[in-house]
Amino acid sequence: MQELKALVRAALAEGIGQGDITTNATIRPDSRCQAWLIAKQDGILSSTKAFRAVFDCLDADIHDWKAIHDGASFERGDRLIEFQGWTAPILTGERVALNFIQHLTGIATFAGEFRKAVEGLPVRLCDTRKTTPLLRKLEKEAVVHGGCTNHRYALFDGVLIKENHITGAGGIRPALERAIKGTHHLMKVGIEVTNIDELHEAIAGGADAVLLDNMSVEMIGEAVKICEDANVVVEASGNITMENVRAVAEAGVHLISIGALTHSAPAVDLSLIIKNV
Amino acid sequence: MQELKALVRAALAEGIGQGDITTNATIRPDSRCQAWLIAKQDGILSSTKAFRAVFDCLDADIHDWKAIHDGASFERGDRLIEFQGWTAPILTGERVALNFIQHLTGIATFAGEFRKAVEGLPVRLCDTRKTTPLLRKLEKEAVVHGGCTNHRYALFDGVLIKENHITGAGGIRPALERAIKGTHHLMKVGIEVTNIDELHEAIAGGADAVLLDNMSVEMIGEAVKICEDANVVVEASGNITMENVRAVAEAGVHLISIGALTHSAPAVDLSLIIKNV
Amino acid sequence: MQELKALVRAALAEGIGQGDITTNATIRPDSRCQAWLIAKQDGILSSTKAFRAVFDCLDADIHDWKAIHDGASFERGDRLIEFQGWTAPILTGERVALNFIQHLTGIATFAGEFRKAVEGLPVRLCDTRKTTPLLRKLEKEAVVHGGCTNHRYALFDGVLIKENHITGAGGIRPALERAIKGTHHLMKVGIEVTNIDELHEAIAGGADAVLLDNMSVEMIGEAVKICEDANVVVEASGNITMENVRAVAEAGVHLISIGALTHSAPAVDLSLIIKNV
Amino acid sequence: MQELKALVRAALAEGIGQGDITTNATIRPDSRCQAWLIAKQDGILSSTKAFRAVFDCLDADIHDWKAIHDGASFERGDRLIEFQGWTAPILTGERVALNFIQHLTGIATFAGEFRKAVEGLPVRLCDTRKTTPLLRKLEKEAVVHGGCTNHRYALFDGVLIKENHITGAGGIRPALERAIKGTHHLMKVGIEVTNIDELHEAIAGGADAVLLDNMSVEMIGEAVKICEDANVVVEASGNITMENVRAVAEAGVHLISIGALTHSAPAVDLSLIIKNV
Amino acid sequence: MQELKALVRAALAEGIGQGDITTNATIRPDSRCQAWLIAKQDGILSSTKAFRAVFDCLDADIHDWKAIHDGASFERGDRLIEFQGWTAPILTGERVALNFIQHLTGIATFAGEFRKAVEGLPVRLCDTRKTTPLLRKLEKEAVVHGGCTNHRYALFDGVLIKENHITGAGGIRPALERAIKGTHHLMKVGIEVTNIDELHEAIAGGADAVLLDNMSVEMIGEAVKICEDANVVVEASGNITMENVRAVAEAGVHLISIGALTHSAPAVDLSLIIKNV
Amino acid sequence: MQELKALVRAALAEGIGQGDITTNATIRPDSRCQAWLIAKQDGILSSTKAFRAVFDCLDADIHDWKAIHDGASFERGDRLIEFQGWTAPILTGERVALNFIQHLTGIATFAGEFRKAVEGLPVRLCDTRKTTPLLRKLEKEAVVHGGCTNHRYALFDGVLIKENHITGAGGIRPALERAIKGTHHLMKVGIEVTNIDELHEAIAGGADAVLLDNMSVEMIGEAVKICEDANVVVEASGNITMENVRAVAEAGVHLISIGALTHSAPAVDLSLIIKNV
Repeated sequence: MQELKALVRAALAEGIGQGDITTNATIRPDSRCQAWLIAKQDGILSSTKAFRAVFDCLDADIHDWKAIHDGASFERGDRLIEFQGWTAPILTGERVALNFIQHLTGIATFAGEFRKAVEGLPVRLCDTRKTTPLLRKLEKEAVVHGGCTNHRYALFDGVLIKENHITGAGGIRPALERAIKGTHHLMKVGIEVTNIDELHEAIAGGADAVLLDNMSVEMIGEAVKICEDANVVVEASGNITMENVRAVAEAGVHLISIGALTHSAPAVDLSLIIKNV
Repeated sequence: MQELKALVRAALAEGIGQGDITTNATIRPDSRCQAWLIAKQDGILSSTKAFRAVFDCLDADIHDWKAIHDGASFERGDRLIEFQGWTAPILTGERVALNFIQHLTGIATFAGEFRKAVEGLPVRLCDTRKTTPLLRKLEKEAVVHGGCTNHRYALFDGVLIKENHITGAGGIRPALERAIKGTHHLMKVGIEVTNIDELHEAIAGGADAVLLDNMSVEMIGEAVKICEDANVVVEASGNITMENVRAVAEAGVHLISIGALTHSAPAVDLSLIIKNV
Repeated sequence: MQELKALVRAALAEGIGQGDITTNATIRPDSRCQAWLIAKQDGILSSTKAFRAVFDCLDADIHDWKAIHDGASFERGDRLIEFQGWTAPILTGERVALNFIQHLTGIATFAGEFRKAVEGLPVRLCDTRKTTPLLRKLEKEAVVHGGCTNHRYALFDGVLIKENHITGAGGIRPALERAIKGTHHLMKVGIEVTNIDELHEAIAGGADAVLLDNMSVEMIGEAVKICEDANVVVEASGNITMENVRAVAEAGVHLISIGALTHSAPAVDLSLIIKNV
Repeated sequence: MQELKALVRAALAEGIGQGDITTNATIRPDSRCQAWLIAKQDGILSSTKAFRAVFDCLDADIHDWKAIHDGASFERGDRLIEFQGWTAPILTGERVALNFIQHLTGIATFAGEFRKAVEGLPVRLCDTRKTTPLLRKLEKEAVVHGGCTNHRYALFDGVLIKENHITGAGGIRPALERAIKGTHHLMKVGIEVTNIDELHEAIAGGADAVLLDNMSVEMIGEAVKICEDANVVVEASGNITMENVRAVAEAGVHLISIGALTHSAPAVDLSLIIKNV
Repeated sequence: MQELKALVRAALAEGIGQGDITTNATIRPDSRCQAWLIAKQDGILSSTKAFRAVFDCLDADIHDWKAIHDGASFERGDRLIEFQGWTAPILTGERVALNFIQHLTGIATFAGEFRKAVEGLPVRLCDTRKTTPLLRKLEKEAVVHGGCTNHRYALFDGVLIKENHITGAGGIRPALERAIKGTHHLMKVGIEVTNIDELHEAIAGGADAVLLDNMSVEMIGEAVKICEDANVVVEASGNITMENVRAVAEAGVHLISIGALTHSAPAVDLSLIIKNV
Repeated sequence: MQELKALVRAALAEGIGQGDITTNATIRPDSRCQAWLIAKQDGILSSTKAFRAVFDCLDADIHDWKAIHDGASFERGDRLIEFQGWTAPILTGERVALNFIQHLTGIATFAGEFRKAVEGLPVRLCDTRKTTPLLRKLEKEAVVHGGCTNHRYALFDGVLIKENHITGAGGIRPALERAIKGTHHLMKVGIEVTNIDELHEAIAGGADAVLLDNMSVEMIGEAVKICEDANVVVEASGNITMENVRAVAEAGVHLISIGALTHSAPAVDLSLIIKNV
């Protein structure tokens, strides 16, 4: 929470500067209002806590807070959140609060659509590290709100040897050897492969998990069988779209990771309206 | 620059955690490489300086840096940037660097498409405060790289009375009166109006600029004439799309502000490849 | 408030170092006292909130707080503030609290004297950016408490072309042209002029406001007439003293800005006394 | 230096906000200038390093720097500092740089006048903790540049029992006892006294130093004799002015501490002028 | 407290990283537990406040807190602290909380043993600046909890001329002269000496206190007599052990300072156990 | 490096306060010296970079730096590091630099002794999270310098279910189930067991690794055989001493983790001496 407040404060500093001159001039400090967050399109809500933190950081004295929960679906016209408080800080914080919640609800909504596309299949859809700088935590939570799951968080909590590591290490074998030796005993070692030969080399080298990069659905199917025999976790990635995600899932991979979840979800249109009380 | 480095350092902390365990295990500290940033689709480049700062913050000892300039158009397959440096920090920083440049190039590219849509017309397309938390500065620069312009930066450097301020102040007149009186003498006062009656009231109240919110193209045309007579700056906003932007521009407004420029531009696909040297 | 507390904490760190060894040695932790802030000369109070924040930051458990309000006039011997709390943190914070309130009450008092000097005239007296580093916000508030008003806050929220900008830009015209083009549409453009020729050039160049720098009262009178015809805001500045301020005001300018308000106001003598309870 | 830069950066953030819109619009980024700091009155210089740090923090690429040294006397019209650099950051930093140097030169100049007033006498004039919040270090250096000396820096590096401590501790004796016992063995213990009885009590209680508060010159003379016999350091304080400081010094005290040195020194008028190069 | 919380937060950031993945996965957020801190060996407790602050910083909602006080002796098997709270944050904070309290209780316990070794003698045992980086404050408090006392805190609050200063200054005399002249009047001047000749020189030079470095007990005895005559405070230091400390004390020094108190005290074994409630 | 400098700066702030009054008074700013770090006992060096960073942070202008490398063994009397620089900052930084290097060399030396005790056996000795608050990174490096290896760094980069987690989760099975399901696919799951029954339950529950807590050597031997059959990583921990470590290793575990490595290593005695140059 500490951390969220720090993030929100930085966003407020960025969005306000040394004071909200319009609100300060036009709104009496003792005005209170009722406020509603209204959906202007369908979606799945995320980050009500960032939305709320904005007003708390501005000492808006929020009362009578009602909100649907993160992860809940909503329709155009729904009132998602309602609350009372001081008018001035509510107007000062409005844009920053909306910037958070529209972006993150956008991600949850987008993730929900992907989730729907693979309905009934035993695959995990997960995010990547392709997140917006400084918003990773909130974005990864939004992915979960949308019904998908999280991959490793950062470079620190998972070993995943990518193409450039293989180049730098001089091949799949030396890369795997060093990774297995150089990491503590509670870590698995994953590696990216782009064809069946590399996959065989990875398994022979002791990989615990493989990432199939940009393979055709056919090749993925072939790879899945090899991995099953070797008891290796198998993940597909690379240019996954709403159109092809189901086919990839049906090919039998354990996980599909999708960069677009966090880097290309459009904002969801939400609006704050107030009434003096 | 100071500030950009702080931003980049925070993004690195988020993306690395306490160390890049894959790179540390697989790449020898004395390996150097040549690296290329390759375009996987057409676009307009933005934020090479954030991209570069990532590697500088990691002491990657970058040499032989060549880059097309921010604002330059590129095509799929182009090499946008190339450089040499230590392999390990380059791989450690790769994802964070790409996260910045793909997002911001996405905005510049999107802005460029809007700009193209109004080619030849004397209108200024500008951004809004609907930016990603903590990335406003870079996003506003990307908007300029894409050929559009910037609106006010924050709540501190421009007076713009929005619908909720009018509600809170008890009407257009009292809102304008207080704003004119409560702001220093180097500020203009702008106000949002949603119909012709409100426009007349705003002009009578002394507004220096008006924002026409979500009006039809016809009503915008009418409003423009009224504003011309009153010597008032006129801006249109609200649900501007690639499809309707030209019609709004042709209605004669001075500015069109477009939230989607910064909140819904998809990332542009860029890729970093390396070769040992 | 967040920001004020940060300022106060920094001042406490500076004024205490790693601990108040005198108080820690001499005062029992469970001693409580009644304290009074006493005026040793006449003045106008400012910054009770910084004074108070000092003791709150030290967890002095302040009770029964009574204070005259910021902006109130007082006379020698008056009790301005009284309160109860733990003796030790009150003594530890005493000097820092006094340093804030004596300095800022000094400014309010000085501003009040200037205000009195132009009593009955429709001029606005305002401050400048000649403030004490890191105290601008509090000093600008003190100026208002003393009955004057605020100019722009910083370099970000107002365009004011000064002599050195004109030199750097190669003249009044190019400076104005660039400023008008290079700023967003909610900003006016102001410029400093030192004689009537420059004033004409500024008006012709499209200035919205002019600052008459160091002109004689006669020349100011002449300038005021020209500005009235051109509908331009007119401000006088430069070596304004208690002696000449009324004459300048009578010449008809809209604003007079006075650096001395913030850079040369002497501290007002205030004293804290305590009684054990 | 680290610390000075942090202070200067905070002052720049305060004085600039999110960008210097006037300079950015009017000055070409590749313009260079020659700049001079000119004295508009006589004085003693202080804080050239803060002045310089402002431009370094803004990457103004300063060259050909010439400056008289801190502590040097100057006369109206003198060129105190001259240098070359980028015009834009020089104009952006000008006001902040002047705010530092005018304030601190004001203190050095004021201290120099006090120093002159006691010329030839073996007394030390020193400052107090009545400094401007966050500027203590620079102000204490300015006091030295003006020819006076420094008292303890903060509450941590000297034991000085003031009137309120005596009240809180229940008298001079218990206060001294606790202070002697409660402090490490490398500290002396000082105490404030207001009359001869208290002085005797302080000496009997083991004080190493006494501060004579607001005593008449006659009483000071009497106190000095008593202290000489007791081998106790003796300091006078309280309402010391340019008029009475010599008389107090002649009464034979070792030190005179003067709050006005730092809390009421008027700024010295200095001006920065530039020429394009 | 502010400061302690900042320290604890930094320790938590170090010990947790971006989240406690084991606890988050295994413990339901609404589980509460009863927890006990159990002693696995005898000792003297220190730093319950750091231990507690860990759980407060994690919002563990601690209730029914019972703890023996800092400085209390305990025996193997004793319950030192007990409390209730949310299970998840208690397990997340457990290790960090134990790291603080085991280390600091280790110091208090070690100090208590030294204290016991000189029981009945009028000597002060004190710590040195040989503390663990960033833990000085807590370690110095632990020293007091163990029955010893504190030397100066840092380089700022005491003048102590060590061997390297003497070398750098060119001898005992010039070092003392400069120190006496260069420090404010509330400071004593201490100096390190290694033999009787140096001791005589130090006293002649005006030292207020001497530190006898690594002298034999015989030489210490001789030095003590000389110091008594000169009314100089005398401290012994250098390789003081549990075995020789009593002999040194009996030689009559006022203080003995012992680096091992803080740099070599072994941690005391304490353990946290929980029960679901 | 960034991070190390921040740590060192914090340690310097703690150790100096607002200035080193002894050095400032006694050492001329233009004095330079040659300095040597001398071993007063045998050991293994660690953290030369923290030692060096202290002087760099103080701008000591270090030249002619020669140092044996971290991890090198040394004997009493050896010169470990030598360098030249400004005398004043070297003396100001001396204690802080020594505090780092003596503590960390203490850990490396202690780790080296443990390493020697299991010479020739294929076991990994590793550290725990029982590190000194804020020094974990340096301490873990010292462990490696001493010839041991590192366990997980923090709660974020490894799943290890401890006794309290089992209590909180309601048993070994539910704890393992939740951990396996709740963690990303690149993580192994480890669990603490205290007897053979628990071990069987852990293996049946899908544990990838087990920590044998405080078992007798005989029970460890039995556990090792069970783990070999199940292809599970096996680690022993709990009251490992220099005396019993070899027996535990010979029982066949893959790893032995030892809290004392970081929480109870005594400082190694090192000394800095200087000569004027």
